[in-house]
Amino acid sequence: MVVLGTGWAGTSFLRNVDTSQYDVKVVSPRNYFLFTPLLPSVTCGTVEPRSIAEPIRNIMRKKGEQIQFWEAECHKIDPVNKKILCRSNICTNSEGKGEFAVDYDYLVVALGAKPNTFNTPGVVENCHFLKEIEDTQRIRRSVMNCFERACLPGLSDEEKRNNLHFVIVGGGPTGVEFAAELHDFVSEDLANLYPTVKDLVKISVIEAGVHILTMFDKRITEFAEQKFQRDGIDVKTNFRVIKVNDKTITMSSGLTGEISVPYGMVVWSTGIGTRPVILDFMKQVGQADRRVLATDEWLRVPNCDGVYALGDCATISQRKVMEDIAAIFRVADKDNSGTLTVKGIKDVLEDICERYPQVELYMKSQQLENFADLFKDASDDALKESKKLDIEVFKKALANVDSQVKMLPATAQVAAQQGNYLAKCFNKMKICEEHPEGPLRIRGSGRHRFHPFGYRHLGQFAPLGGEQTAAQLPGDWVSIGHSSQWLWYSVYASKQVSWRTRFLVVSDWIRRFIYGRDSSCI
Amino acid sequence: MVVLGTGWAGTSFLRNVDTSQYDVKVVSPRNYFLFTPLLPSVTCGTVEPRSIAEPIRNIMRKKGEQIQFWEAECHKIDPVNKKILCRSNICTNSEGKGEFAVDYDYLVVALGAKPNTFNTPGVVENCHFLKEIEDTQRIRRSVMNCFERACLPGLSDEEKRNNLHFVIVGGGPTGVEFAAELHDFVSEDLANLYPTVKDLVKISVIEAGVHILTMFDKRITEFAEQKFQRDGIDVKTNFRVIKVNDKTITMSSGLTGEISVPYGMVVWSTGIGTRPVILDFMKQVGQADRRVLATDEWLRVPNCDGVYALGDCATISQRKVMEDIAAIFRVADKDNSGTLTVKGIKDVLEDICERYPQVELYMKSQQLENFADLFKDASDDALKESKKLDIEVFKKALANVDSQVKMLPATAQVAAQQGNYLAKCFNKMKICEEHPEGPLRIRGSGRHRFHPFGYRHLGQFAPLGGEQTAAQLPGDWVSIGHSSQWLWYSVYASKQVSWRTRFLVVSDWIRRFIYGRDSSCI
Repeated sequence: MVVLGTGWAGTSFLRNVDTSQYDVKVVSPRNYFLFTPLLPSVTCGTVEPRSIAEPIRNIMRKKGEQIQFWEAECHKIDPVNKKILCRSNICTNSEGKGEFAVDYDYLVVALGAKPNTFNTPGVVENCHFLKEIEDTQRIRRSVMNCFERACLPGLSDEEKRNNLHFVIVGGGPTGVEFAAELHDFVSEDLANLYPTVKDLVKISVIEAGVHILTMFDKRITEFAEQKFQRDGIDVKTNFRVIKVNDKTITMSSGLTGEISVPYGMVVWSTGIGTRPVILDFMKQVGQADRRVLATDEWLRVPNCDGVYALGDCATISQRKVMEDIAAIFRVADKDNSGTLTVKGIKDVLEDICERYPQVELYMKSQQLENFADLFKDASDDALKESKKLDIEVFKKALANVDSQVKMLPATAQVAAQQGNYLAKCFNKMKICEEHPEGPLRIRGSGRHRFHPFGYRHLGQFAPLGGEQTAAQLPGDWVSIGHSSQWLWYSVYASKQVSWRTRFLVVSDWIRRFIYGRDSSCI
Repeated sequence: MVVLGTGWAGTSFLRNVDTSQYDVKVVSPRNYFLFTPLLPSVTCGTVEPRSIAEPIRNIMRKKGEQIQFWEAECHKIDPVNKKILCRSNICTNSEGKGEFAVDYDYLVVALGAKPNTFNTPGVVENCHFLKEIEDTQRIRRSVMNCFERACLPGLSDEEKRNNLHFVIVGGGPTGVEFAAELHDFVSEDLANLYPTVKDLVKISVIEAGVHILTMFDKRITEFAEQKFQRDGIDVKTNFRVIKVNDKTITMSSGLTGEISVPYGMVVWSTGIGTRPVILDFMKQVGQADRRVLATDEWLRVPNCDGVYALGDCATISQRKVMEDIAAIFRVADKDNSGTLTVKGIKDVLEDICERYPQVELYMKSQQLENFADLFKDASDDALKESKKLDIEVFKKALANVDSQVKMLPATAQVAAQQGNYLAKCFNKMKICEEHPEGPLRIRGSGRHRFHPFGYRHLGQFAPLGGEQTAAQLPGDWVSIGHSSQWLWYSVYASKQVSWRTRFLVVSDWIRRFIYGRDSSCI
């Protein structure tokens, strides 16, 4: 079994898979797991880089098993020969040994994503991303360099102002959190150390949409926008970035047309794109026309024996009810009468809801209590008369169900749950071969071996700076302010992957409380 | 007043100088002070880089004064026009503003030194140095890369062994401490994480002299060599490195001739050399034939009004007694009789000893109690007869005095004391103008304004790994073992420049005790 990647999905899988059943080999260019939700904190020194990194060998050693880890990048997946090709970028010292191939029976692809530049010219050359630990170190150095540069003799106020213009492209949670962190860093720490230039600092957030933090509740979006306004962070919504050169960033909106603004530093955080190795793999498995690798609900790559994909590098393509409507009808119509009874549906409803989670979501969205109500609502008379219904009525009743299919967000939470899920499937592979636990096969016979992956949303945070955080918890419960900040601290401390990083993160927070953030250009 | 450099000398000067009397400007490419004695600890993650760095602006803010700091490198000192030329290497963003000139009345040169490669080919390209924080980060990454590389598939044992051969060139305190740290890192932390390759690790220390740690007491040298032998660290004395290429290091000794050894990483730590900007300055002030910039005993650069040099970039050139012997005689012979009395000498002895510290050292080394004994010893009869002596006898008596002139070592301790001394001189400049406090001018009249710089040695540590440290304290008191390690911890914690770094360093030590060192390739 070969695992590609040591991010949330890969690490969560590794921590849970039973390594005594499988010969596990891990290939990743990163020999550590990174607690990515704290990356924005690292950019300004609230938390130190190493405090959120845990060596993958440590994690595996705790399991008592020796797995093989190879620090290399997989650059080609060959599903036909069940083989991957890897390249080590540290191997400069021995001839031609940087390249090697690994055979697999099972391949777990958890390679993550790359930043999405939308092919905007100049972004790769001039902008910072916020995905890897090296990015945060570069950003931190860059912020300090902007300040030191603005303090050099002989600069006009105009030039100082340009050097101290920090631009964040993308109003998602990462971009907003970074903007908030940077504002705190400037106002709490740097203002005292650079009193001559502190008033020249400007932070701008550029967002193509109408609002920032659109994935959150409206109340949070509003609060965030108001808080940023009070803090003097310039939120430019409806602006699309056209190009970036080494001194200015050019953007346009319907109102202003094209404008160019000089900047000191740009951080690009507009979502994720697919890695080249995944794109190449997609071509081989007949997904060339898609933008993201699709898997089924069991995280399997279709038409590709033994290959699983999870985390940011793939999305689950939920089977549509309407595609299977005839089969579903057949399964529910046990006596082959051509009509369904309410009882007949009730017998298979659980299986249907598990196989097609959109059915349950649809029922919830329509505030229906049970499946029978669905029919009532759709064809009141037909059901009342006979308590039976034929396939045409059935189709009509479920016509809008598939609108409820939800794409899972590209978050750590999803990736971690997927890794955990897949590991558990592998662990009970043998048992489930004999005693399948999954729902009824709609288009086949018998049951699926495993339950399909189900995501449980535990809530999401949006730190907004000044010890204030917005939290959106399950059940649309929204909390904003200092109390959520403390919730944030405790959740993030408890979610740490080891006691070591927990100790480090907490002592970093304490250090920051007492002494502030470090401003050394390291 | 312009201060160049933010190392031990520059920072110690800045912390002590009275900034209300002078308009102080600081130019340094590093906007932080680095606690360099802990650099070897940083290479292996015992202490984190930022824990030993304190922003220079923090240090100055604590004084309640706003000084101007410019992050730039001085590349030319022009003593004729009293001007320095600086270049900022962060200024890529505004046209031609990277270069600027600064006028000075007083110039404090504390630029430090660069690593000395003795022009050995390939050193700059292939070796790591151990002077800056970036060096330690590179070394740490390099150590981890060597291990990861050795774990890649398809490597022969021979190749693994080569990748895990760590070479340290130079058996001074830094090199030895690094070797000890690395050995601890490997045996305490990495052996558990890389069990398949742990036995292939080899650490070699290459020293051109007969022993390592030659500046220490023999007992320490012996203990260190024995401990390294027990630990399996290969100490190659009497070996001179001839060249280094990207895979092998070539060295020679009288016994073996030239041998080439493959390596995974080389750390070069063979002492210090003079920076180009200082060499250029030396040409301008008539010191072109010297290897190191010389100052007088008051840290002034001769023939160069208002320029002071201290720390590793300069050495104090102690005035020889024999050069001034006639003048000294004249000063002591108050009645111009052509002969000296014991009483006459006693009157000026204190001044002479202050001006020429070698006199006191010579007396100590000869176990003489007072100056009169010197004459007794040298010309027993002459003194006994007359209790008087003429210049010839005087010369003869002092003939060997100058052999006691000691060069100060290039240590943090010396630099810090020099910075402190010079700051105090500047602070009392006005008072001492009227009431000079220094010794009698031997070749002039009146007194020197200030006491010459006197170095007070407080002892030196040599950490040898495994929680054992050798300490050489004043009075030739030598202590080796675990107790010295605790002394080392407490001294280094107390010497921290701020409570913040003290907190960080101590929490790093605690973290290391509990959780070991981090092995992430960051």
